[in-house]
Amino acid sequence: MKALGRHILAEVYGCDPTVINDVEKVERILVDAALKAGAEVREVAFHKFSPQGVSGMVIISESHLAVHTWPELGYAAVDVFTCGEHVDPWVSMRYICEAFGAQNVTATETLRGILPEKNSASNQSGRPWQPGSVPAQAVAG
Amino acid sequence: MKALGRHILAEVYGCDPTVINDVEKVERILVDAALKAGAEVREVAFHKFSPQGVSGMVIISESHLAVHTWPELGYAAVDVFTCGEHVDPWVSMRYICEAFGAQNVTATETLRGILPEKNSASNQSGRPWQPGSVPAQAVAG
Repeated sequence: MKALGRHILAEVYGCDPTVINDVEKVERILVDAALKAGAEVREVAFHKFSPQGVSGMVIISESHLAVHTWPELGYAAVDVFTCGEHVDPWVSMRYICEAFGAQNVTATETLRGILPEKNSASNQSGRPWQPGSVPAQAVAG
Repeated sequence: MKALGRHILAEVYGCDPTVINDVEKVERILVDAALKAGAEVREVAFHKFSPQGVSGMVIISESHLAVHTWPELGYAAVDVFTCGEHVDPWVSMRYICEAFGAQNVTATETLRGILPEKNSASNQSGRPWQPGSVPAQAVAG
């Protein structure tokens, strides 16, 4: 029994307000974070709120990155969720925290898609892993 | 000390594969789930993978909904993250699970943005709550 993916939820405090209130910077940071971990970017959507704050998400082949910022608090809620074996979500998370100038971070990693072996049998098709399919090595144990 | 938001991570098993492999249906379900909870939809991005699987996210004023599906396993990873007092993330989550025809769901709720009172003082500005700001009732305790 193995998991399909790893999902990090991070509480990112003491961020630089000028960075996390800048939608273009935040988008660039999240996209770069995905690329640095070797992920493949599929869709990007960001939104700037008035008077302040940014929300955004990057859909990657391996799942997603998401962010919501409260510049007035120096706080950002950051998620990095990756599936498969070849992308390390912590690479992305570390990059984002550094780029936000974070002074304090607490993070938890949750395993997603923990499936019993009987469900895994149907996925050993030998086709290359991609989201929506299952990496054989991740489920066959 | 209170939290800015509530983030539900759900493992949704036994889904109808024809539903969770249909990107248009999945998008409609997530958008409807947001609306049924009274959330305000800001951005929508979905992607259909080949040979199967859907990933997508809905940015709402109150944070986001996200989904990744493995139709061949009948499995979906679903997130609903809402901030503020007026949107209940469980309303959205229940709607999604029902619409996916789920037979089994496990879910956890995590509080996001737990801030000390000293940080809360600057947010009692009386302006209407919106993402990027902080609902006074959620931080003033």
